[in-house]
Amino acid sequence: MSTDGVDLAFDEAGLLPAIAQDADTGEVLMLAHVDAEAVERTVETGDAHYYSRSRDELWRKGETSGHVQRVEEVRVDCDGDALLYLVDQAGGACHTGYRSCFHRTLDGEVVGEQVFDPDAVYG
Amino acid sequence: MSTDGVDLAFDEAGLLPAIAQDADTGEVLMLAHVDAEAVERTVETGDAHYYSRSRDELWRKGETSGHVQRVEEVRVDCDGDALLYLVDQAGGACHTGYRSCFHRTLDGEVVGEQVFDPDAVYG
Repeated sequence: MSTDGVDLAFDEAGLLPAIAQDADTGEVLMLAHVDAEAVERTVETGDAHYYSRSRDELWRKGETSGHVQRVEEVRVDCDGDALLYLVDQAGGACHTGYRSCFHRTLDGEVVGEQVFDPDAVYG
Repeated sequence: MSTDGVDLAFDEAGLLPAIAQDADTGEVLMLAHVDAEAVERTVETGDAHYYSRSRDELWRKGETSGHVQRVEEVRVDCDGDALLYLVDQAGGACHTGYRSCFHRTLDGEVVGEQVFDPDAVYG
């Protein structure tokens, strides 16, 4: 896939990792994967789209939960094999109710903020 | 691999993506991959280690360039299949001389800061 300026180097499965970062606070919210269609839909709609490897389908973030990500900018890394979405995150990015999926240290200490009750959203 | 608290879900190749983020500014610097040994060495030494898929070897960031990453904290995402290194980055993270590998938009506009001359470092 080529955009105006940057060629993307999708892997053999046609995917790339994409990081979502809060455009205001800089908090890293999640990492997911995208295929070419997800990138196109993200650019076209301004809503973050990903590719769900477990469900094998295009996925608009927040479709179920309402916790959409409005994408202010998409950045590409030097090798064209990773993306960075700078987003305005509604609610929380994590299905566990935390603002960020990266809410634990490697030792298991919880350092992030829980911002919604997942049972109320997904239950 | 299990640490004290969090089980890591390495993929079939024994790898996980790891994001390096500047611990002070919040800038996302790079995305690379780690195997279990890279995580262990990172925790033991406090220097960011990755696994180079192209060279098929453990890789201490900055070994050639001197642009090491001191790791202040390692975070794990909700599924245990991605890591976030919060780092103190010496020099620049990107081999092209930019502070961050994510120094371009999808349209090819350069938005990042070049902090060193790659020819002088790697030449």
